[in-house]
Amino acid sequence: MQKPFQINRAYKEVQQITVAVDCLIFGFNQGNLELLLVHRGFEPERDKWSLIGGFVVNDEDLDDAAYRVLRELTGLEDVYMEQVHAFGKADRDPYERVISVTYSALVLKENYDDELVRSYKAQWFPIDALPQLIFDHEEMVEAAMRRLRRRVKTGPVGFNLLPEKFTLPQLQRLYEAILGEKIDKRNFRKKLSAMNFLIRLDEKDKSESKKGAFLYRFDEEKYNDVKHFSI
Amino acid sequence: MQKPFQINRAYKEVQQITVAVDCLIFGFNQGNLELLLVHRGFEPERDKWSLIGGFVVNDEDLDDAAYRVLRELTGLEDVYMEQVHAFGKADRDPYERVISVTYSALVLKENYDDELVRSYKAQWFPIDALPQLIFDHEEMVEAAMRRLRRRVKTGPVGFNLLPEKFTLPQLQRLYEAILGEKIDKRNFRKKLSAMNFLIRLDEKDKSESKKGAFLYRFDEEKYNDVKHFSI
Repeated sequence: MQKPFQINRAYKEVQQITVAVDCLIFGFNQGNLELLLVHRGFEPERDKWSLIGGFVVNDEDLDDAAYRVLRELTGLEDVYMEQVHAFGKADRDPYERVISVTYSALVLKENYDDELVRSYKAQWFPIDALPQLIFDHEEMVEAAMRRLRRRVKTGPVGFNLLPEKFTLPQLQRLYEAILGEKIDKRNFRKKLSAMNFLIRLDEKDKSESKKGAFLYRFDEEKYNDVKHFSI
Repeated sequence: MQKPFQINRAYKEVQQITVAVDCLIFGFNQGNLELLLVHRGFEPERDKWSLIGGFVVNDEDLDDAAYRVLRELTGLEDVYMEQVHAFGKADRDPYERVISVTYSALVLKENYDDELVRSYKAQWFPIDALPQLIFDHEEMVEAAMRRLRRRVKTGPVGFNLLPEKFTLPQLQRLYEAILGEKIDKRNFRKKLSAMNFLIRLDEKDKSESKKGAFLYRFDEEKYNDVKHFSI
């Protein structure tokens, strides 16, 4: 006999579970992608690195918990995060049953240097040289990276990660940093020009070569309007 | 003074929270998209319609909870679901603090008619004529639809939703059902042919017109290999 509607099970009979949030702050830094981690100063898992995590309290919205935890552990306030995934394997935390919901943001690292309170032991690591992380945090990083890559391939990303005027090599390095692979220059430029949201300026950046590279800016209206983005 | 590391807060001091799962099973049915709902037979919210939901118990994986709840409430076993989003507003459930994680699947409705145990009061509704739903379940439907539409626009979907041999009008109706809008036929066909994963057969379907429509099948290898999908 199957049980009827679980839906009618009295709320008070239901087991409750500890719920956490973990924040993944990716920083774009001079052509490279980095991830902000915190150093755990207390037991359990003392002296290990982890995502920026903490527990949800009963009267706070899940999203609010993510912002509170980020603020408490790093000092960061002005970061827009999106929810990525709820991690809920029964044994994912060896100390207790904890379901953790991850949140992620991609920022220009240099914009947050001042806000980052170093005493909280938050530290940036290059995405390809992360220290060992606790629990299933590596899986969390992978899931957030997959999402970031999907996003960057299928829609406009990067407005706030480049200076207002930028060169095509700068833009390409942003995509390469997120995608974690070299991109063919000719193909990349062909696709960009098909999408029609870059405006070439009458100025050149000569910091990297004598010939110089034309500076571009985004046409914000067209950029937001691109329907068939694919890099 | 800000508090130091929340991360070191002893687990036992943390408030625990009731965690639920809600399943969104979308069914493609003769050119239309439908959603499977359950009728609540008990208090609270008796006689209202809701998503297929139930509570997570302490020793089960979150994903497993979704499959158990789906099975218990509808009899469905053979459905692959993906997690969509954790809904965690403190007041989303008027009776108690409950965080709910949604799971979603898109199936060919007729494949599940036998499995669906009608006594559980599960019922399909056209996506554009849903009854009023409890709590924030409408928001859950919208989030799952947004995800489904994004997926269908940026990657191959639909292998299992069409017969092995199908016509281009059938394929177009699938996209229109999911996207909820008419698609320009010429544009649609142009994009499809650019993506190069349809094989035209030497057979016609004459059920809808005297002239008939060519039958196609997917080239599975090419279909899975499409990198720059955009409809």
